Amino acid sequence: MKMMFGRPGSKSGMLLRIGQCLCAAASVAFMVSAERFSDYTAFCYLIASMGLQLLWSFGLACLDLYALKIKKDLQNAVLVSLFVVGDWVTATLSLAAACSSAGIVVLYARDLDFCNNPKMHLPCGRFEYSIAMAFVTWFFIAISSHVMLWLLASA
Amino acid sequence: MKMMFGRPGSKSGMLLRIGQCLCAAASVAFMVSAERFSDYTAFCYLIASMGLQLLWSFGLACLDLYALKIKKDLQNAVLVSLFVVGDWVTATLSLAAACSSAGIVVLYARDLDFCNNPKMHLPCGRFEYSIAMAFVTWFFIAISSHVMLWLLASA
Repeated sequence: MKMMFGRPGSKSGMLLRIGQCLCAAASVAFMVSAERFSDYTAFCYLIASMGLQLLWSFGLACLDLYALKIKKDLQNAVLVSLFVVGDWVTATLSLAAACSSAGIVVLYARDLDFCNNPKMHLPCGRFEYSIAMAFVTWFFIAISSHVMLWLLASA
Repeated sequence: MKMMFGRPGSKSGMLLRIGQCLCAAASVAFMVSAERFSDYTAFCYLIASMGLQLLWSFGLACLDLYALKIKKDLQNAVLVSLFVVGDWVTATLSLAAACSSAGIVVLYARDLDFCNNPKMHLPCGRFEYSIAMAFVTWFFIAISSHVMLWLLASA
């Protein structure tokens, strides 16, 4: 297998996983700190999806760290297949969660103009930050998933 | 390059492209037939995204048909790279459009219960059919994009 950026068991791979963890954690933190987020199914789904992403990326970051410490090569076909499936599922769920939440925020901020209405008391800023971090998380996990698929296909 | 299901210039590839065209067209048709869809940014974006998908898939279906007629092999690295980028961009836009619209419909149908409220006059059924067809379109384009990336990586 090739010496690609972001491959499992490399420093770049570990940094990518840590980036995913941090962004997913920031997204959950912003959303949880917003009042009445639990009234919206999409925002709850965003937290669930980012939580899953956090666990998956944290697990793989630990695996990368372990592989770097004992200088073990993680690039065998079975492991990479597992990473491909996991990355692809979490990437799709992350994008879906970010977009469904973004759909609601665009509806409130643009179509209905609820965000500028002081009577509504909507913490639109926090929703927006949370969704922005979810999109960054998705961007990082999309890089990982493409690198994994490429490694598996070119093995 | 391998003789894979859905590869460019094959019957299975052409059928996949035709499937994408038909589902994207159905999604646009259901959404356009719903009253007041243009009040919602997400629904307009769904139509734009499905329109782009329709054009892209129709173009590639014609190319597949032409390649089958003159028995030309379309699997060279430059063409497949182009298909990978195009498929990936349209797949991401399709999923984003489907999810952002789904976020609004879930908000209206579940969180706010507007769909069962006769005063709101919301054509929720048509919105739901349109979004379902957008998800099917995304599923087909996701298969195409993975096949293309696999072909490119294993070349």
